[in-house]
Amino acid sequence: MKEEIIDSLKEISGADWVVSDLSQMGSYLYDETEAKLRPTACEDCVVVKPSSAEEIAKIVTYANKELVPIMVRGGGTGIVAGAIPLKPSIVVSLERLNKNIEIDEDNLMITVDAGVTLEELMAKLADNEKLFFPIHPGDEGAQIGGMIVTNAGGVNAVRHGIMRQHVKALEVVLPTGELVKLGGKLIKNNMGFDLMQLMIGGEGALGIVTKATLKLYPKSKYSGTLVISFDTKEEAASFVPKILQEGIVPLAIEYIERPIALEVAKHLGKTWPAKKGNVDIMIILNEATEDILYGKCEELVSLSEKYRAVDSLIAETTKDQRNILEIRSNVLTAYQETIAEGLDIAVPTSFVPNIIDDLNRIAKKYGTYTLCNGHIGDGNIHNFVFLEDGKVPDYIDDMRAEFYAAALSYGGTCTAEHGTGRLRKQYMSLQFGEREIAIMQGIKKVFDPNGILNSGVIVD
Amino acid sequence: MKEEIIDSLKEISGADWVVSDLSQMGSYLYDETEAKLRPTACEDCVVVKPSSAEEIAKIVTYANKELVPIMVRGGGTGIVAGAIPLKPSIVVSLERLNKNIEIDEDNLMITVDAGVTLEELMAKLADNEKLFFPIHPGDEGAQIGGMIVTNAGGVNAVRHGIMRQHVKALEVVLPTGELVKLGGKLIKNNMGFDLMQLMIGGEGALGIVTKATLKLYPKSKYSGTLVISFDTKEEAASFVPKILQEGIVPLAIEYIERPIALEVAKHLGKTWPAKKGNVDIMIILNEATEDILYGKCEELVSLSEKYRAVDSLIAETTKDQRNILEIRSNVLTAYQETIAEGLDIAVPTSFVPNIIDDLNRIAKKYGTYTLCNGHIGDGNIHNFVFLEDGKVPDYIDDMRAEFYAAALSYGGTCTAEHGTGRLRKQYMSLQFGEREIAIMQGIKKVFDPNGILNSGVIVD
Repeated sequence: MKEEIIDSLKEISGADWVVSDLSQMGSYLYDETEAKLRPTACEDCVVVKPSSAEEIAKIVTYANKELVPIMVRGGGTGIVAGAIPLKPSIVVSLERLNKNIEIDEDNLMITVDAGVTLEELMAKLADNEKLFFPIHPGDEGAQIGGMIVTNAGGVNAVRHGIMRQHVKALEVVLPTGELVKLGGKLIKNNMGFDLMQLMIGGEGALGIVTKATLKLYPKSKYSGTLVISFDTKEEAASFVPKILQEGIVPLAIEYIERPIALEVAKHLGKTWPAKKGNVDIMIILNEATEDILYGKCEELVSLSEKYRAVDSLIAETTKDQRNILEIRSNVLTAYQETIAEGLDIAVPTSFVPNIIDDLNRIAKKYGTYTLCNGHIGDGNIHNFVFLEDGKVPDYIDDMRAEFYAAALSYGGTCTAEHGTGRLRKQYMSLQFGEREIAIMQGIKKVFDPNGILNSGVIVD
Repeated sequence: MKEEIIDSLKEISGADWVVSDLSQMGSYLYDETEAKLRPTACEDCVVVKPSSAEEIAKIVTYANKELVPIMVRGGGTGIVAGAIPLKPSIVVSLERLNKNIEIDEDNLMITVDAGVTLEELMAKLADNEKLFFPIHPGDEGAQIGGMIVTNAGGVNAVRHGIMRQHVKALEVVLPTGELVKLGGKLIKNNMGFDLMQLMIGGEGALGIVTKATLKLYPKSKYSGTLVISFDTKEEAASFVPKILQEGIVPLAIEYIERPIALEVAKHLGKTWPAKKGNVDIMIILNEATEDILYGKCEELVSLSEKYRAVDSLIAETTKDQRNILEIRSNVLTAYQETIAEGLDIAVPTSFVPNIIDDLNRIAKKYGTYTLCNGHIGDGNIHNFVFLEDGKVPDYIDDMRAEFYAAALSYGGTCTAEHGTGRLRKQYMSLQFGEREIAIMQGIKKVFDPNGILNSGVIVD
């Protein structure tokens, strides 16, 4: 990296916060993208750790003038190569933008610096008696800014939807360097085109989020977890829409095939509580009173019996609930060494039985198998491609394309929550027509005429 | 309008569905914008009433090639001059795009042609035992397509938010003529930039919505309406955040100053039930069981006593509830002859007492007064500017600018739900910086390089 660039960054953020030595820069060049699938990072980079939005505005203004690419870095928990610099770049890490967390009880909102992690936000809210924030994408090391630009999903989408529904206001540095405020602590706001909606899910290609205001919700203090077992995948999947149609809206409805549950439990030295059947639906309820909680648990159990469940159990103690949740949360960890990739398709909830059939059929065609788990209550299935002899199988691209085609045939999407990044970008043309992609490229150009920011993410 | 344009439209949609005679075209040239404030429509227009999205795509392709402006027309219920042609234009009316309404019980969604009115959608859902659609902007003549492009709000936003949160998929004709599908019956979908979000609230300047899929919700069968009275505006407004913080999320929380309630009741030949105090908060609850409903009513009454309410009454019968709602819904009708304008600001809910003070103070400064009513639970206040001797007062622009400045000083917006259209466009620079407006203009250009569609709406 040119000395003059390094010097300019030192002038803006101070010499202590500029890293250009490769030995200290390593952890800033990759995110959590599968090592066997990720592109190789460009090592000719410089990392800067600004402490304010104003510093970031200066850095971006400088980079835009000098035409130096910027790669923005949040918690680095992404898995679609959205935070790996591929050209000589300034890596702007938001880790020091984590000072302010303000709870606004009157408006039921929280305003945080973008570098605040989900863990820090949850810790702050744990001290608050009344309010909670519902979105939980799994890795609590994720930063709030990153969760916004990737429109994070996670397990609680059944009741609470995704990040987009909870972002009320953003402070953003535009790719041309201006620091702007979008949105507000408002429920209704119809002035102009809603640029904030483009920032959400824009994967940092349209601006750097530096501060955000999020909606909070009254805490429901009573929670219970049900594990309902079925003999077949079809029966399990078909049960899900019945729950929602009864007017029961759980916090989460998860799907886990028994071989996965047992493998993960073994990996963690724990026991999976369900014995009968082959597939489990895990339901997390979160209610205002104990009576409502028990009423809903009972209603769910009797509903499940009507729809061919072979067993059901209710975990009420914190310990039992945590055991189940921990097994569910560690699926990827337990399979890390054996899988090439965990996919992220979604289909309309009613088509989950069909897509699970299709995924299994397609894998079989390639002489392999897949295992599915995921957020069945919102139609988002994570299925695995396994390594063969420790290597990424040759057929992975073809098989993945067939998985995607199957999802799209039900009106689904190639990526429900992981995002487009650089890994999924090549599949955009499966999901969009030429004109839509041209419009996306045009929008990128409008925000970022010089293509400075997160270049190659979503669009070229 | 040139004969060749009229002939081309006749070829696409059939001669019966093309109207170029001014005497038959009158009702297509204006919307519900206040007659005294609206711009004068250009009469050199032709109205076409296509019966399918494909016909619309042909019309737009033709218009884009021949550079003829298009003004899209839904139910014509807008009030910011968003559907008034100002240049010689093809007025595309969606009234015949109203054939299909499909309820998808498994996915809790409904798919409708864009020209279906809210009244038709509600009638269809009235026959369904389980599901309902929550957004209600007041005028049931509004078409669903129009409700989407204006991101409609209304009374139920406290619990259910605005239109944006309920739109899952759109079929859209782009300004360059392509017919595309955006979104899907999905809860999570992170492929590419989310162009659907730009269509929502885009006021038809970025595309013509021809079909839409909306989220539905389990019906809560028990509803009750409370009217809680306070002596002062401040006390009434301060009570609202307390409700939400208790974890009670009503369907609606409305604010109505007593002189308005009495005037509207008189106009309708009805009686407003509250006697004590000077300001009323009207709360609509909608719950799954009768027990929950009564529990929440009682909780609200005792909470209101804690916060200085002087009286409260609960309407349980359908008749009593309808009486109150009818008075609330007819505020604009009752004042039609006496007001120049009803404004549409919003502020964070906690600042409602402050903004109501400010609005009164500003009006007084101009030697007049204002009256407020509106969706206090979501921070959206409609306040009146009165006519003087039947005329729009000279000071209206100055006073309006001061109202807006006050709302913005609390982080609010000039228009919460009515939209930007052409009437509010001149105030964009109060709310956005130059670069943001330039980006909005750039986005318009990307979608609509020839500026064919709804020209002058939101951006020039």
